Amino acid sequence: MFDDRYTFGTRIDAPFDAVREGVVAALKTEGFGVLAEIDVAGTLRDKLDIEREPYLILGACNPPFANRAITTDPSIGALLPCNVVIRGDGAVVVVEAMDPKAVLALVGDAGVDEIATEIRSRLRRVIGVVEQQFTVMESAQ
Amino acid sequence: MFDDRYTFGTRIDAPFDAVREGVVAALKTEGFGVLAEIDVAGTLRDKLDIEREPYLILGACNPPFANRAITTDPSIGALLPCNVVIRGDGAVVVVEAMDPKAVLALVGDAGVDEIATEIRSRLRRVIGVVEQQFTVMESAQ
Repeated sequence: MFDDRYTFGTRIDAPFDAVREGVVAALKTEGFGVLAEIDVAGTLRDKLDIEREPYLILGACNPPFANRAITTDPSIGALLPCNVVIRGDGAVVVVEAMDPKAVLALVGDAGVDEIATEIRSRLRRVIGVVEQQFTVMESAQ
Repeated sequence: MFDDRYTFGTRIDAPFDAVREGVVAALKTEGFGVLAEIDVAGTLRDKLDIEREPYLILGACNPPFANRAITTDPSIGALLPCNVVIRGDGAVVVVEAMDPKAVLALVGDAGVDEIATEIRSRLRRVIGVVEQQFTVMESAQ
Protein backbone atom coordinates (compact mmCIF):
# COMPACT_ATOMS: atom_id res chain seq x y z
CA MET A 1 0.00 0.00 0.00
CA PHE A 2 1.29 3.47 -0.75
CA ASP A 3 0.55 6.67 1.14
CA ASP A 4 0.51 9.99 -0.63
CA ARG A 5 -0.39 13.53 0.48
CA TYR A 6 -4.14 13.11 0.35
CA THR A 7 -4.63 9.55 -0.88
CA PHE A 8 -3.52 6.01 -0.15
CA GLY A 9 -3.75 3.07 -2.47
CA THR A 10 -2.06 0.35 -4.44
CA ARG A 11 -0.80 -0.53 -7.89
CA ILE A 12 -2.25 -3.69 -9.42
CA ASP A 13 -1.31 -5.85 -12.39
CA ALA A 14 -4.73 -7.03 -13.60
CA PRO A 15 -7.35 -6.02 -16.18
CA PHE A 16 -9.03 -2.71 -15.41
CA ASP A 17 -12.58 -4.05 -15.26
CA ALA A 18 -11.60 -6.92 -12.96
CA VAL A 19 -9.97 -4.43 -10.58
CA ARG A 20 -13.07 -2.24 -10.67
CA GLU A 21 -15.25 -5.22 -9.75
CA GLY A 22 -12.88 -6.22 -6.96
CA VAL A 23 -12.90 -2.69 -5.53
CA VAL A 24 -16.69 -2.43 -5.57
CA ALA A 25 -16.99 -5.82 -3.83
CA ALA A 26 -14.37 -4.91 -1.22
CA LEU A 27 -16.13 -1.60 -0.53
CA LYS A 28 -19.36 -3.48 0.04
CA THR A 29 -17.81 -5.73 2.70
CA GLU A 30 -16.84 -2.57 4.63
CA GLY A 31 -20.33 -1.10 4.38
CA PHE A 32 -19.75 1.29 1.47
CA GLY A 33 -22.18 1.57 -1.41
CA VAL A 34 -21.07 3.24 -4.63
CA LEU A 35 -23.44 6.19 -4.99
CA ALA A 36 -21.74 7.66 -8.04
CA GLU A 37 -19.43 6.36 -10.71
CA ILE A 38 -17.84 9.00 -12.89
CA ASP A 39 -16.13 7.94 -16.08
CA VAL A 40 -13.63 10.79 -16.32
CA ALA A 41 -11.82 9.43 -19.37
CA GLY A 42 -15.14 8.95 -21.19
CA THR A 43 -16.27 12.47 -20.28
CA LEU A 44 -13.02 14.01 -21.55
CA ARG A 45 -13.31 11.96 -24.74
CA ASP A 46 -16.89 13.13 -25.32
CA LYS A 47 -16.40 16.77 -24.37
CA LEU A 48 -12.83 17.52 -25.47
CA ASP A 49 -12.01 14.73 -27.94
CA ILE A 50 -9.00 13.86 -25.76
CA GLU A 51 -7.87 10.27 -25.27
CA ARG A 52 -6.64 9.43 -21.78
CA GLU A 53 -6.04 6.17 -19.98
CA PRO A 54 -9.11 4.75 -18.20
CA TYR A 55 -10.00 6.90 -15.19
CA LEU A 56 -12.96 6.27 -12.90
CA ILE A 57 -14.05 8.02 -9.74
CA LEU A 58 -16.22 5.87 -7.48
CA GLY A 59 -18.15 7.86 -4.88
CA ALA A 60 -18.31 5.55 -1.88
CA CYS A 61 -20.68 6.11 1.01
CA ASN A 62 -21.17 4.29 4.29
CA PRO A 63 -24.69 5.42 5.22
CA PRO A 64 -24.47 5.29 9.06
CA PHE A 65 -21.24 7.29 9.07
CA ALA A 66 -22.54 9.71 6.41
CA ASN A 67 -25.62 10.30 8.53
CA ARG A 68 -23.50 11.01 11.62
CA ALA A 69 -21.24 13.34 9.64
CA ILE A 70 -24.11 15.35 8.17
CA THR A 71 -25.80 15.57 11.57
CA THR A 72 -22.55 16.97 13.00
CA ASP A 73 -21.95 19.43 10.16
CA PRO A 74 -24.67 19.90 7.52
CA SER A 75 -22.17 21.41 5.06
CA ILE A 76 -20.03 18.28 5.02
CA GLY A 77 -21.66 16.89 1.88
CA ALA A 78 -19.41 19.29 -0.03
CA LEU A 79 -16.53 16.93 0.94
CA LEU A 80 -18.43 13.67 0.42
CA PRO A 81 -18.74 10.93 -0.70
CA CYS A 82 -15.33 9.31 -0.19
CA ASN A 83 -13.81 8.98 -3.62
CA VAL A 84 -11.92 5.93 -4.78
CA VAL A 85 -10.06 6.50 -8.03
CA ILE A 86 -9.31 3.60 -10.35
CA ARG A 87 -7.00 4.64 -13.17
CA GLY A 88 -4.77 3.13 -15.79
CA ASP A 89 -1.09 4.03 -15.51
CA GLY A 90 0.81 2.26 -18.27
CA ALA A 91 0.84 -1.46 -17.51
CA VAL A 92 -0.73 -1.13 -14.06
CA VAL A 93 -4.04 -0.09 -12.56
CA VAL A 94 -3.81 2.36 -9.69
CA VAL A 95 -6.48 2.18 -6.98
CA GLU A 96 -6.35 5.11 -4.58
CA ALA A 97 -8.77 6.42 -2.02
CA MET A 98 -9.20 9.95 -0.80
CA ASP A 99 -7.68 10.07 2.69
CA PRO A 100 -10.66 11.08 4.83
CA LYS A 101 -8.38 12.31 7.64
CA ALA A 102 -6.69 14.75 5.27
CA VAL A 103 -9.86 16.03 3.65
CA LEU A 104 -12.20 16.08 6.65
CA ALA A 105 -9.58 17.96 8.70
CA LEU A 106 -10.97 20.98 6.83
CA VAL A 107 -14.09 20.71 8.98
CA GLY A 108 -12.14 21.24 12.19
CA ASP A 109 -14.47 19.22 14.42
CA ALA A 110 -13.49 16.49 16.88
CA GLY A 111 -16.60 14.41 16.15
CA VAL A 112 -15.88 14.53 12.44
CA ASP A 113 -12.23 13.60 13.06
CA GLU A 114 -13.43 10.48 14.88
CA ILE A 115 -15.64 9.51 11.94
CA ALA A 116 -12.77 10.20 9.52
CA THR A 117 -10.47 7.91 11.52
CA GLU A 118 -12.95 5.05 11.34
CA ILE A 119 -13.68 5.58 7.64
CA ARG A 120 -9.95 5.72 6.94
CA SER A 121 -9.44 2.33 8.66
CA ARG A 122 -12.21 0.83 6.60
CA LEU A 123 -10.89 2.24 3.32
CA ARG A 124 -7.41 0.89 4.17
CA ARG A 125 -8.94 -2.54 4.72
CA VAL A 126 -10.59 -2.19 1.29
CA ILE A 127 -7.19 -1.54 -0.29
CA GLY A 128 -5.80 -4.50 1.67
CA VAL A 129 -8.52 -6.82 0.35
CA VAL A 130 -7.82 -5.64 -3.21
CA GLU A 131 -4.11 -6.34 -2.68
CA GLN A 132 -4.89 -9.89 -1.52
CA GLN A 133 -7.00 -10.50 -4.59
CA PHE A 134 -4.61 -9.28 -7.30
CA THR A 135 -0.91 -9.07 -8.10
CA VAL A 136 0.53 -5.96 -6.49
CA MET A 137 3.24 -4.07 -8.41
CA GLU A 138 5.91 -2.85 -6.05
CA SER A 139 7.23 0.38 -7.50
CA ALA A 140 7.53 4.09 -6.94
CA GLN A 141 4.12 5.60 -7.61
CA MET B 1 -23.30 35.03 -0.33
CA PHE B 2 -21.81 33.40 2.74
CA ASP B 3 -18.29 32.08 3.20
CA ASP B 4 -17.62 29.19 5.52
CA ARG B 5 -14.49 27.14 6.30
CA TYR B 6 -14.55 25.01 3.19
CA THR B 7 -17.69 26.14 1.35
CA PHE B 8 -19.38 29.28 0.10
CA GLY B 9 -23.01 29.63 -0.82
CA THR B 10 -26.36 31.21 -0.28
CA ARG B 11 -29.72 30.69 1.41
CA ILE B 12 -32.74 30.83 -0.87
CA ASP B 13 -36.47 31.12 -0.28
CA ALA B 14 -37.89 29.05 -3.15
CA PRO B 15 -39.06 25.48 -3.81
CA PHE B 16 -36.26 22.91 -3.63
CA ASP B 17 -36.69 21.58 -7.16
CA ALA B 18 -36.75 25.07 -8.67
CA VAL B 19 -33.50 25.89 -6.88
CA ARG B 20 -31.95 22.65 -8.14
CA GLU B 21 -32.90 23.50 -11.72
CA GLY B 22 -31.54 27.02 -11.32
CA VAL B 23 -28.23 25.72 -9.96
CA VAL B 24 -27.80 23.19 -12.78
CA ALA B 25 -28.53 25.90 -15.39
CA ALA B 26 -26.13 28.37 -13.74
CA LEU B 27 -23.39 25.71 -13.61
CA LYS B 28 -23.85 25.11 -17.32
CA THR B 29 -23.30 28.78 -18.19
CA GLU B 30 -19.91 28.55 -16.42
CA GLY B 31 -18.92 25.39 -18.29
CA PHE B 32 -19.77 22.83 -15.60
CA GLY B 33 -21.63 19.66 -16.38
CA VAL B 34 -23.21 17.67 -13.55
CA LEU B 35 -21.48 14.29 -13.72
CA ALA B 36 -23.07 12.88 -10.59
CA GLU B 37 -26.16 13.66 -8.57
CA ILE B 38 -26.35 11.96 -5.21
CA ASP B 39 -29.65 11.97 -3.36
CA VAL B 40 -28.26 11.72 0.18
CA ALA B 41 -31.63 12.03 1.89
CA GLY B 42 -33.07 9.30 -0.34
CA THR B 43 -30.10 7.02 0.33
CA LEU B 44 -30.40 7.46 4.09
CA ARG B 45 -34.14 6.82 3.87
CA ASP B 46 -33.58 3.61 1.86
CA LYS B 47 -30.63 2.28 3.85
CA LEU B 48 -31.31 3.47 7.40
CA ASP B 49 -35.02 4.32 7.40
CA ILE B 50 -34.10 7.82 8.58
CA GLU B 51 -36.01 10.88 7.42
CA ARG B 52 -33.92 13.97 6.75
CA GLU B 53 -34.59 17.19 4.91
CA PRO B 54 -33.84 17.05 1.16
CA TYR B 55 -30.07 16.83 0.59
CA LEU B 56 -28.45 16.58 -2.84
CA ILE B 57 -24.80 16.54 -3.83
CA LEU B 58 -24.20 17.63 -7.42
CA GLY B 59 -20.77 16.64 -8.75
CA ALA B 60 -19.86 19.48 -11.11
CA CYS B 61 -17.06 19.21 -13.64
CA ASN B 62 -15.58 21.69 -16.07
CA PRO B 63 -13.87 19.34 -18.54
CA PRO B 64 -10.98 21.56 -19.74
CA PHE B 65 -9.97 22.39 -16.16
CA ALA B 66 -10.45 18.79 -15.02
CA ASN B 67 -8.18 17.65 -17.82
CA ARG B 68 -5.50 20.17 -16.84
CA ALA B 69 -5.78 19.18 -13.18
CA ILE B 70 -5.45 15.44 -13.87
CA THR B 71 -2.54 16.05 -16.20
CA THR B 72 -0.79 18.00 -13.43
CA ASP B 73 -1.54 15.43 -10.69
CA PRO B 74 -3.10 12.10 -11.69
CA SER B 75 -4.29 11.47 -8.10
CA ILE B 76 -6.43 14.60 -8.06
CA GLY B 77 -9.62 12.76 -9.02
CA ALA B 78 -9.80 11.74 -5.37
CA LEU B 79 -10.73 15.41 -4.69
CA LEU B 80 -13.01 15.89 -7.71
CA PRO B 81 -15.55 16.70 -8.99
CA CYS B 82 -16.44 20.01 -7.37
CA ASN B 83 -19.44 19.35 -5.19
CA VAL B 84 -22.38 21.68 -4.95
CA VAL B 85 -24.72 20.79 -2.09
CA ILE B 86 -28.39 21.73 -2.23
CA ARG B 87 -30.14 21.08 1.06
CA GLY B 88 -33.28 21.96 2.88
CA ASP B 89 -32.81 23.86 6.14
CA GLY B 90 -36.20 24.61 7.63
CA ALA B 91 -37.91 27.20 5.45
CA VAL B 92 -34.91 27.85 3.22
CA VAL B 93 -32.83 25.98 0.67
CA VAL B 94 -29.07 26.20 1.18
CA VAL B 95 -26.86 26.07 -1.91
CA GLU B 96 -23.19 25.73 -1.09
CA ALA B 97 -20.18 24.80 -3.15
CA MET B 98 -17.00 23.12 -2.02
CA ASP B 99 -14.33 25.82 -1.96
CA PRO B 100 -11.80 24.52 -4.49
CA LYS B 101 -9.02 26.68 -3.01
CA ALA B 102 -9.48 25.07 0.41
CA VAL B 103 -9.71 21.49 -0.85
CA LEU B 104 -7.14 21.60 -3.66
CA ALA B 105 -4.58 23.20 -1.33
CA LEU B 106 -4.06 19.60 -0.17
CA VAL B 107 -2.31 18.95 -3.48
CA GLY B 108 0.39 21.54 -2.78
CA ASP B 109 1.05 22.43 -6.43
CA ALA B 110 1.20 25.94 -7.90
CA GLY B 111 -0.41 24.84 -11.19
CA VAL B 112 -3.30 23.26 -9.31
CA ASP B 113 -3.68 26.40 -7.17
CA GLU B 114 -4.08 28.43 -10.35
CA ILE B 115 -6.82 26.08 -11.60
CA ALA B 116 -8.51 26.19 -8.17
CA THR B 117 -8.55 29.99 -8.26
CA GLU B 118 -10.26 30.04 -11.65
CA ILE B 119 -12.76 27.33 -10.68
CA ARG B 120 -13.51 29.19 -7.46
CA SER B 121 -14.31 32.39 -9.42
CA ARG B 122 -16.64 30.45 -11.68
CA LEU B 123 -18.43 28.75 -8.79
CA ARG B 124 -18.88 32.11 -7.08
CA ARG B 125 -20.45 33.46 -10.25
CA VAL B 126 -22.78 30.43 -10.20
CA ILE B 127 -23.88 31.33 -6.67
CA GLY B 128 -24.29 34.94 -7.81
CA VAL B 129 -26.55 33.91 -10.69
CA VAL B 130 -28.66 31.78 -8.33
CA GLU B 131 -28.97 34.77 -5.99
CA GLN B 132 -30.21 36.97 -8.85
CA GLN B 133 -32.82 34.39 -9.78
CA PHE B 134 -34.36 33.73 -6.36
CA THR B 135 -35.15 35.48 -3.10
CA VAL B 136 -32.08 35.41 -0.87
CA MET B 137 -32.60 34.97 2.86
CA GLU B 138 -30.23 37.14 4.84
CA SER B 139 -29.44 35.32 8.05
CA ALA B 140 -26.72 33.67 10.05
CA GLN B 141 -26.04 30.29 8.49
